[in-house]
Parts: sequence; structure tokens; C-alpha cells
Amino acid sequence: MTETDRNRQVVLKRRPEGRLRPEDFELREVDIAAPDDGQVLVRTIWLSLDPYLQLRAQGHERYYPAVDLDAPMLGGAVSRVVESRHPGFKPGDIVEDYTGWQDYALADGATLRKVDPGLAPVSTALSCLGMPGLTAYLALVDLGKPEPGDCLVVGSAAGAVGAVVGQVGKAMGCHVVGIVGSPEKAGYITDELGFDAAIDHRQDNIADALDRLCPNGINVYFENLGGPISECAYERMAHRARVVVCGAITEYSAENPQMRSNLQNILFSEARVSGFNIFSYTDRFEDARRRLAGLYANGQLKMREHVVDGLENAAEALPMLFEGGNFGKLLVRVSDEEGRGSGL
Amino acid sequence: MTETDRNRQVVLKRRPEGRLRPEDFELREVDIAAPDDGQVLVRTIWLSLDPYLQLRAQGHERYYPAVDLDAPMLGGAVSRVVESRHPGFKPGDIVEDYTGWQDYALADGATLRKVDPGLAPVSTALSCLGMPGLTAYLALVDLGKPEPGDCLVVGSAAGAVGAVVGQVGKAMGCHVVGIVGSPEKAGYITDELGFDAAIDHRQDNIADALDRLCPNGINVYFENLGGPISECAYERMAHRARVVVCGAITEYSAENPQMRSNLQNILFSEARVSGFNIFSYTDRFEDARRRLAGLYANGQLKMREHVVDGLENAAEALPMLFEGGNFGKLLVRVSDEEGRGSGL
Repeated sequence: MTETDRNRQVVLKRRPEGRLRPEDFELREVDIAAPDDGQVLVRTIWLSLDPYLQLRAQGHERYYPAVDLDAPMLGGAVSRVVESRHPGFKPGDIVEDYTGWQDYALADGATLRKVDPGLAPVSTALSCLGMPGLTAYLALVDLGKPEPGDCLVVGSAAGAVGAVVGQVGKAMGCHVVGIVGSPEKAGYITDELGFDAAIDHRQDNIADALDRLCPNGINVYFENLGGPISECAYERMAHRARVVVCGAITEYSAENPQMRSNLQNILFSEARVSGFNIFSYTDRFEDARRRLAGLYANGQLKMREHVVDGLENAAEALPMLFEGGNFGKLLVRVSDEEGRGSGL
Repeated sequence: MTETDRNRQVVLKRRPEGRLRPEDFELREVDIAAPDDGQVLVRTIWLSLDPYLQLRAQGHERYYPAVDLDAPMLGGAVSRVVESRHPGFKPGDIVEDYTGWQDYALADGATLRKVDPGLAPVSTALSCLGMPGLTAYLALVDLGKPEPGDCLVVGSAAGAVGAVVGQVGKAMGCHVVGIVGSPEKAGYITDELGFDAAIDHRQDNIADALDRLCPNGINVYFENLGGPISECAYERMAHRARVVVCGAITEYSAENPQMRSNLQNILFSEARVSGFNIFSYTDRFEDARRRLAGLYANGQLKMREHVVDGLENAAEALPMLFEGGNFGKLLVRVSDEEGRGSGL
């Protein structure tokens, strides 16, 4: 089959206390399973690491089913078809699905999606043309309702979702300010991605910077942080501002997160604050992906990748998402596109 | 003219430190002014005391102009026309406008509204058929988007706005739970106003009570409180819940109010949280007032009044709004409908 005839899986051993740590996972080997009718055996190429994994591992949230213990950790992946018992797929096809942290997976042909390798590097199916891109696009357009001239403030702007939000905002005529965590990332979003301005939350006074960069207030705030940045943003909402709550990563592993109340700011600005869940938008994916591909083809949509080699290093890499350690979309290279293990 | 030919005014002497107190006001007497062309001289009958006065007196808010110092305090009032230089009004007409804390006022005929004394007691033009009623109706219908079977939770349910919210919610087929501050108010909203249930925030465990009364979560939360009740409500949002932020009275005089972050709850429930400002809805007033009058005529809309006699007692009465001291819509009787001073 390939250089190995065993399947390595990284399984979640226990619910995390606070943030997910490498000790919460275990690497094990099992036999490669054979596909049933309708199934497709795939070899993982790229594995996506995303902040929502923290929520899904915790298993106490209300609208996300918990990841099963002792099962391969959840994760979106781009893979190559090894064997197909579904008429829609044949060996060699590049595909994408939530096949998780393992070398090989049995995918359901009904949910598996074919990736066109001619469109863009296939890893983009996990970044700007994949779930982060769809999240950014649909949340911004549907809930943020950007208009030309709006001041759009994006948290985690160098991250996979934030980077797309800002670029789509630019394409829609907004004045886009991104919040990042290093001078390098500030340069990245302004010089490479075309944001109008960056605020480095580790160096700049956020309140002063927002006052300077958004003199008429914030029309659209894309929330994926929580914490002091969020507090400062709510205090600067323009009239009828839209806040898209797409994440709150500073809060995910906190016991009982507190904030300065946002109620009076919502009241006075007549803001509209909306929670976003990508799984409510599945019927819009195809359309949104087509639009993102159009921006990509035009050069209006770009994204760096931060690649970690080897499935065995996924658990060590995950905390980077919460510490600002990654620079670009965080991906694990599990094998190369020819199916060779990444360590080989 | 009447028993007095002087005009008593209660003026704001200074911006409050924290909550408005009687010492922030001063009673003074001036001559009664004569109306110019287009103006109407009115004799105040009823003066409305409402929580927003705190915000307007503070003078630092972003979307409410501050009340002027050394000018009569702001307030909605029902009055009788004494002298008219506007073709739309004649002496004896009952009218309503923001004519403030004074015995007599010069009203602008262009903004003055005639009240039909045949429809309901004229004081209702300051309660269920006036600004609190319009606020409740428009905020609930436009932003809360109630549907039959929805669980609607209303803060300050025995207050002027909350009482209307709950009754309109009942008329629209909701299961309505009101938050109140005494057993008497609990009995009032359930027995007199038809709410399905009441929670006494001074006696009941709010979290337990909400769990019991809203077993499928809260579909519409009408926010006018902030504080611990709000925190408990956000934690129990049903999927796609709507939160109407109409006020946050527990926060109005606080320095830097903190709360348990609502971001993750908004995210997980895909809630829609919307700030409401009545002044954005002036073009809807006539329609909403007609609908409220219909409910009133049907017996589906009622409201107690808490009457304080005498303009000179308005400043002493105001803090009741923030302490739960009033039972029903808080009104000051400045004169009777024949124009006699209330003390006589």
C-alpha cells in the first residue's frame, strides 16, 4: 500500500483541564480498515489545526457535540483516495473531510468533497478556500453586513479566519484594521494582505490605536478574541455597528471569564451582535467557496501557511493557536501528495 | 389664570456623581412665559419618571444629548392647553410632550401631540400608551421577533416597559416569565397582567428558577437590567435566541460595570443581541400606539400607576426606579385635570 501498512492515530485520552495539552493525547497504531460499500479509504496529506478543537475536546458546550474519548481527534483534512467503494471517487483523487488525526481514514463518500488541485495548492482547501475561509466569508457578509467606507476591525487578523475577513472586507470597500500579536504579523497583514492598518496588541495601547485608526467608530467588529481587545472595541462602536461573534479564544479554557459589561455600549450604539456557527450555513458553502476562489484567482485573497511536519507533532503544535505562536494557517503535513509519510 | 401665576421649575444643578439624588436638583420660581407664534402654553398634569433620566443627566453618553444644567429637568408630561398660538390646539386640549419638570411650559405646536381623553385615562399617554409602551412594543416586535411558543423572559417586569413587553408577548402567544423584586409584584404580573410565571430576584435563585421555568432555554430575553440576572439569562439562551438590550439600569451609575462574559453564550447559541433606541423608531409610533390601544381596549393591556403628588416631590421619588420602590408606572401628579395644583 505505502511505506507503512499500519494506521497511526492520535486519540483524545481525557477531557482537558483548561487548555488542551499534549498529555491529553495518545499516539497509537491500529490496522488500516477496509472500506465498506459507500466508503472511501483515504491517506491524510494535510491536517488542519483550528481553535474550535479546544471547544470540541472540552465536551461541555451546548451546540457542539464533544469529541469522543479514545477515538481519533477531530480535524479537517485534505487526503488522497487510496481505495474507493463510492462511485464518486477513484484512487488518486484529492479530497477533503473531517477525517481526523490519523494517517488513514475511512471517509463517507456522501460527505467527502473533491478538491480541484488545478485551482490552487490543495492545502488551501483547509485555509482560505476551506472552513476558515467559509467561516470568514459567511460570517462577515451575512452578519457583519459590510458597506463601502465602513471601518472593519478584525481580531486575530493574521490567523486563518481573520486574514480572510480582512481581505474580503477590503474587496468590499471597507477600511480594515487588524489586531495582531507581533510586528512581523503587523507587516504581513498590511504589506502582504492589504489591510489598511494593524494594531499589535502586545505593544500598542489598543484604546489609543483604535481611537486613532477608527476616528468615527467601528462599524463592523469581527470578534474572535474576547478579553481586553473586545472591551475596547465595544466602547468604540459606531451607531448601528455590527458585531460578529465568531470566536472568543481568550476565553475558551477560562473558568469563568469576566469582561467589562458590553450592555450599555450595545444599547447606546444600537449595535447588532450576532453569534456565528458555520454548521448553520452548509447550504451556502458552494456559493461562498466559488466567490472565495474568484478572489483567490484575482490575487485578492492570500494566506501564509505555518506547516508542522508529522502527525506525531500535531498535539505539540496545537497550543500555538492560543499563544500566537503560529504565523499563518496552522497545518500538519501528515504525508506528501504522493502518499509518502512526512518524516520520510 | 390658576391658583398660581408663577411657574415652579425643578432644574438640574449639577451632573450627578453616581446615582441622581435630590440634592442634584433645585426648585425655583420664574414668571410664566407667554407663547410666541406656533407655541402653546400648557399646564402640566402628569409628569413621567423613567430610568433614562439618569443617563440624560449624566451627560457623557454617546447617543443621548445631555440635559442642560440650570434648565428644567427633562421629562415626558401630559398637560392641558392654557393658551395656544398654534392652529392645531385650543385651550382645554389634553396634550403630551417632553415639557419637563415644571408647572407650566411653552410647547412647540409642531411636536406636541393631542391625547384623546375618551380612549383611556390620560395618564396612560405616559405609560402603556406612551413612551414606555412604544418602547416595549417596538423593541419586542422589531428586535425580539417573538413567535408563538417562544419562552420570553422580561426583566423589571412590573416596571412600565417590562409590563407591556410581557403583555404583548402573551398576546403574541409566548410563554412569558417576568423578573420582579417582591412577592407583591410577582402576584401583580401573574394575576393581574397574565404573565405565566414570575421570578422574585430578591428571594429566588435566579438560575434555578430559569432552569425550571424555561426548560428549553430562553428564546427572547428582554434586557433592561444588566447584572446577575442578565448573566443567568445569557447562560440559558436557546438556539438563535434574540436579546433586546433596551436598558441596563443596574449599570447606569456604576463606574466600570463588570459581568461574566456573554461572548461564548452568544457564540454557542447563535444569539442575536440588539440595542434599542426609541428615537430611531419615530416613524413607527403612530402604528404602534394604535396597536397598543387595541390591546388596551380588549383588556389585554393594563398597568398600575404609582402616583407621587406634587412637582416638589419628583426628585425624591426618582430613586425609587433604581431601588424597586415604585409599584407600577411612576408618575408625578403636578396638577389635576382641571388645572388645580396637586397640593390643593
